[in-house]
Amino acid sequence: MSSSTGTIFRVTTFGESHGAALGAVVDGVPAGLKIDMAFLQQHMNRRRPGTSKFVSPRKEPDKLEILSGVDSQCVTLGTPLTLIVRNTDVHSEDYASLRNTYRPGHADFTYHKKYGVAPQPGGGRSSGRETLARVAAGTIARLILGEQVKIFSYCTAISGVVAKVTDIPFAEMHPLRFADPALAAKAEQAVLAANKEGNSVGGIIELLICGVPAGLGEPVFEKLDAALAGAVMSIGAVKGIEFGAGFRFPEMTGQQANDQMSPDGFESNNAGGIIGGISTGQNIIMRLAVKPTPSIAVPQKSITFDGKAATVTTTGRHDPCVAPRVAIVAEAMAAIVLADALLCQKTRIL
Amino acid sequence: MSSSTGTIFRVTTFGESHGAALGAVVDGVPAGLKIDMAFLQQHMNRRRPGTSKFVSPRKEPDKLEILSGVDSQCVTLGTPLTLIVRNTDVHSEDYASLRNTYRPGHADFTYHKKYGVAPQPGGGRSSGRETLARVAAGTIARLILGEQVKIFSYCTAISGVVAKVTDIPFAEMHPLRFADPALAAKAEQAVLAANKEGNSVGGIIELLICGVPAGLGEPVFEKLDAALAGAVMSIGAVKGIEFGAGFRFPEMTGQQANDQMSPDGFESNNAGGIIGGISTGQNIIMRLAVKPTPSIAVPQKSITFDGKAATVTTTGRHDPCVAPRVAIVAEAMAAIVLADALLCQKTRIL
Amino acid sequence: MSSSTGTIFRVTTFGESHGAALGAVVDGVPAGLKIDMAFLQQHMNRRRPGTSKFVSPRKEPDKLEILSGVDSQCVTLGTPLTLIVRNTDVHSEDYASLRNTYRPGHADFTYHKKYGVAPQPGGGRSSGRETLARVAAGTIARLILGEQVKIFSYCTAISGVVAKVTDIPFAEMHPLRFADPALAAKAEQAVLAANKEGNSVGGIIELLICGVPAGLGEPVFEKLDAALAGAVMSIGAVKGIEFGAGFRFPEMTGQQANDQMSPDGFESNNAGGIIGGISTGQNIIMRLAVKPTPSIAVPQKSITFDGKAATVTTTGRHDPCVAPRVAIVAEAMAAIVLADALLCQKTRIL
Amino acid sequence: MSSSTGTIFRVTTFGESHGAALGAVVDGVPAGLKIDMAFLQQHMNRRRPGTSKFVSPRKEPDKLEILSGVDSQCVTLGTPLTLIVRNTDVHSEDYASLRNTYRPGHADFTYHKKYGVAPQPGGGRSSGRETLARVAAGTIARLILGEQVKIFSYCTAISGVVAKVTDIPFAEMHPLRFADPALAAKAEQAVLAANKEGNSVGGIIELLICGVPAGLGEPVFEKLDAALAGAVMSIGAVKGIEFGAGFRFPEMTGQQANDQMSPDGFESNNAGGIIGGISTGQNIIMRLAVKPTPSIAVPQKSITFDGKAATVTTTGRHDPCVAPRVAIVAEAMAAIVLADALLCQKTRIL
Repeated sequence: MSSSTGTIFRVTTFGESHGAALGAVVDGVPAGLKIDMAFLQQHMNRRRPGTSKFVSPRKEPDKLEILSGVDSQCVTLGTPLTLIVRNTDVHSEDYASLRNTYRPGHADFTYHKKYGVAPQPGGGRSSGRETLARVAAGTIARLILGEQVKIFSYCTAISGVVAKVTDIPFAEMHPLRFADPALAAKAEQAVLAANKEGNSVGGIIELLICGVPAGLGEPVFEKLDAALAGAVMSIGAVKGIEFGAGFRFPEMTGQQANDQMSPDGFESNNAGGIIGGISTGQNIIMRLAVKPTPSIAVPQKSITFDGKAATVTTTGRHDPCVAPRVAIVAEAMAAIVLADALLCQKTRIL
Repeated sequence: MSSSTGTIFRVTTFGESHGAALGAVVDGVPAGLKIDMAFLQQHMNRRRPGTSKFVSPRKEPDKLEILSGVDSQCVTLGTPLTLIVRNTDVHSEDYASLRNTYRPGHADFTYHKKYGVAPQPGGGRSSGRETLARVAAGTIARLILGEQVKIFSYCTAISGVVAKVTDIPFAEMHPLRFADPALAAKAEQAVLAANKEGNSVGGIIELLICGVPAGLGEPVFEKLDAALAGAVMSIGAVKGIEFGAGFRFPEMTGQQANDQMSPDGFESNNAGGIIGGISTGQNIIMRLAVKPTPSIAVPQKSITFDGKAATVTTTGRHDPCVAPRVAIVAEAMAAIVLADALLCQKTRIL
Repeated sequence: MSSSTGTIFRVTTFGESHGAALGAVVDGVPAGLKIDMAFLQQHMNRRRPGTSKFVSPRKEPDKLEILSGVDSQCVTLGTPLTLIVRNTDVHSEDYASLRNTYRPGHADFTYHKKYGVAPQPGGGRSSGRETLARVAAGTIARLILGEQVKIFSYCTAISGVVAKVTDIPFAEMHPLRFADPALAAKAEQAVLAANKEGNSVGGIIELLICGVPAGLGEPVFEKLDAALAGAVMSIGAVKGIEFGAGFRFPEMTGQQANDQMSPDGFESNNAGGIIGGISTGQNIIMRLAVKPTPSIAVPQKSITFDGKAATVTTTGRHDPCVAPRVAIVAEAMAAIVLADALLCQKTRIL
Repeated sequence: MSSSTGTIFRVTTFGESHGAALGAVVDGVPAGLKIDMAFLQQHMNRRRPGTSKFVSPRKEPDKLEILSGVDSQCVTLGTPLTLIVRNTDVHSEDYASLRNTYRPGHADFTYHKKYGVAPQPGGGRSSGRETLARVAAGTIARLILGEQVKIFSYCTAISGVVAKVTDIPFAEMHPLRFADPALAAKAEQAVLAANKEGNSVGGIIELLICGVPAGLGEPVFEKLDAALAGAVMSIGAVKGIEFGAGFRFPEMTGQQANDQMSPDGFESNNAGGIIGGISTGQNIIMRLAVKPTPSIAVPQKSITFDGKAATVTTTGRHDPCVAPRVAIVAEAMAAIVLADALLCQKTRIL
């Protein structure tokens, strides 16, 4: 159902931005795995706001508590893990002026139409804050995938500044996760300039996943690329996805596009590591288009809940560019999909 | 599971390209709907090969038989509908020379790795022929959506020829579903030229869906865009997806990207009709990158099932450009997702 | 969903009693299993009517056709198997006099209330004939369970005649599957006497399942006994279920009820082979209460579809005691549940 | 999956007896429902131990906290509700002497076999304490069912004392929920006598559900009786289930068993309110066999985790008869199943 995903490794998230807590129930975790809370917290911190001038200045410790599924040594029991984070730094007053008006680019209008109840301050369930639960669950997924599977993410474009090279260690340390050291300052300036005028910018994220064994993914509706696409598209800011050559395929011929093989393996990877919906054993490569943060200080036209014209100026604490944080969430979603595919594959041959 | 999709409107497909039959079980169809077999067959024919020089010359009548779920007047009973098509024009001999060799760009290698059994002639379950079952199920979905929801598809690019205008009635009649009458001949020539040299080309498909009410889609993992992305990415040839401004978002500011509102409605539609994963009531717009058909007559490097170097030349009957037929399947997948979302929404407010 | 069951080994059935065909799609079957069509047909024949004077004289060959999921040698591909049986011996005229009147004990009234469409002749989807698809799917499940798991069924009571001993080989050959050779003639007479007056009788079925390894079943909602109970209760005629000491537990003390252990194993099996919802490795024992066939020739009070008083006399070809055939279906449902549990268990420890 | 149940109204429970907390995520709750925390707590208290001399003297306040899914007025948002109860009165030392030995009648042995990790003190996930989460979720389900659906439970037998009359208001006030005022003292004495010798007793629970509209339940695998049977059989102590005439059906004829109809409605209710798996609109009646509490102070034979002979004496705080508390959990499970069926039915006719 709507807040759950996965067949065997099954993640259910819950929580609203200004409610008591957010979290995830993670069912289907094999028994006997040591959960390293420091490892979990480290991934939570990668997503956390308040860590640089490029992201929201909200100070949320995002401290994970584990409610179930482990023994006293923090070893998994095979039962559902529950991970929660209490909401502590809620400034509902920031949203007071927004009461009764739909924020452009946000889900206020659509939630109101769907549920018939007034949109919640801070976006409620549609807030990006929901994604912390995904990062928690994704970190559990990484334990199932093991050390051989490595998931990297980095920004290859921010506000029109396009990376020419990919330096993953640089990106991991860079506050914008920008992949090109030579152009990083330019990307930073673009973000700061937008921020200064109360505006925001978007970006492109690349995910590179190494070490996935061949054979994962289920025909026909749970193809690995279909599952990954659905998973990352469920992140609010993502509006486009491509695998391998992606949107460049339409200009290629079959001869150019096909990845030929030799006894040493594939000779290219236009497919992005997935053919026929099943992993080839090559690197999985996907790129995500991230839209600019909708919360901006520039005045915008909108309407009140009862349909009257209004002007909206968002004055809360928001990311001028959300792509670096979306990247961490995308890693988590990829891990969730892959862990489920790995466990399912154990049932495919007796 | 892998061959099923949907929560209430639930489609399960089955069948291999050279097996006895392919088909779908469609559960969750409301009772009392009149199934017009001519309407079903008409949509099947839109996908069917053998209808022009641009598509595979295979002559498959693709004649649907309905095995269950309707009364003697072909009115739905509320029970699962089963629709099958017998395989009749199977040329397994075309594949005889391919036995024991992986075809580049096809799922032969990955299926072998996944299941440990030799890939089937014609691709088996991974064949594009599987999609006829989706078109059958998607046509049932259209009956649930009703006349007010209209789903259009057309090619906005083929082999690098990019449409400048969108003429939907023209595209619907054009054998390549190309959207621009002025450039259609150029697109045709590109396809024929590729075909002549035994090569193939790709394209871009746009889906335009009108009349979807606001409020469809389920946070958080079954957002409408997530469900649509997963659904169309499960079509073999699709390698990229974007909604609304899609991959142009990364170059926009928040101010440019947000769709502002007035009492008369939204003032733009960069979001492509979905915000926060829920339909806005505007047109839904998505674009798909379709890779060139992998079956080509040009010799390609490959390996045999036991890992020895080999050369593959595919001599069967294949589409030089599969995008026009993928478009019909994409329409069907969109209809399946929307019908499920529509039925689920009936449970969201008591 | 309603016509599907299982997590990994997933069965979807379809079809109405007087429609074109009935069948099942069986997804999640591991690749590489040899399907022996004779073995399948043999189990189909065990359920089939027309085989003795105690069961319905309908002559239905119930010949299975396999549409998908196997290669040319009938070895599974890992893709969904589809099995269908065409309806051939349909006597809708038997039901002509019943048109517009609800048959007591049948689902005509409830289906009408549920779906708003008139009940189908022969019961449509609610007919016992639907269960042939379960037997087909259950036979595939047996292949996954392998030779070490043995599922036996027999009647321990028919029409108040209660078996004192359990002779399984005798029961397997007896047309009523009655377990006690000494009392079998008495049970036969009871059935024939009821049949002579146009009446019907019920019975109790026992399932004995040997060779199930310890550890199957999933806490908390998919406990093995919960899954088995739901599965067999989904057979129309079953109205009660108990495991092990079952309804005798309420008169026992904890000391009497608990199965104590020694280094040689359990010292008793009151639990019926399942504790805490998980198999113990002992025999699984469950008993089912089967109601008398509702179709009887004795005139009964009923109402027409528009609510007027009416008298119903069912003159079709019906089983005077359906328990022996229900037993075969119950075996199949148990096999389906166990195969799914076995495959799921492969994912519980890395 | 294993800790989740339901299609639209979907409940996931989590938590171990001696972990940090137990709880439930309840997805699919329609928006706009007022959650009355006092009403929730009242149902929690009906299940709670420590309330009379007949139940466990553990003092657990079982105080519910709601983490998500409601606005500041405690009105549902349409998003998942999360309800937790912290574990406070954990006496792990009671179990210290049991470390390394399987408790007879408990799931220690089967969990160990399933997961390969040592059983948890207090039973972990298999503890009856898990059911508090079901009662919380079931109380939300009651809000969906509304006032017209009433679910009653009472004991019709305890330790061989069989009620001759059913006085529901009496049972609701009686500490053993015993239905017969005249025999209640006798039932009490039986329980106290067993308790005195460190033993325990079982009972039979009847559920009476009034006001369920006709038409709920889904053919074929989610028949209403199948879903209810699976749901209540997932409660650890339940070992048998019957609907309506249940295990008396095998001695009836079809003529006796069928519920005939007149223009005023059904003339009897042998079916227990469900025919063909769909509610008839009559009262739903089911009975559950509850085994004696396995935790007893009488010494029992068992084995250690490494297979050596041992003697077990359970000295913790346990219910001498768990049936009255199981009854409340069974009510909750019935409410969960019915709420899901009610919501699903909204999608069956357009």
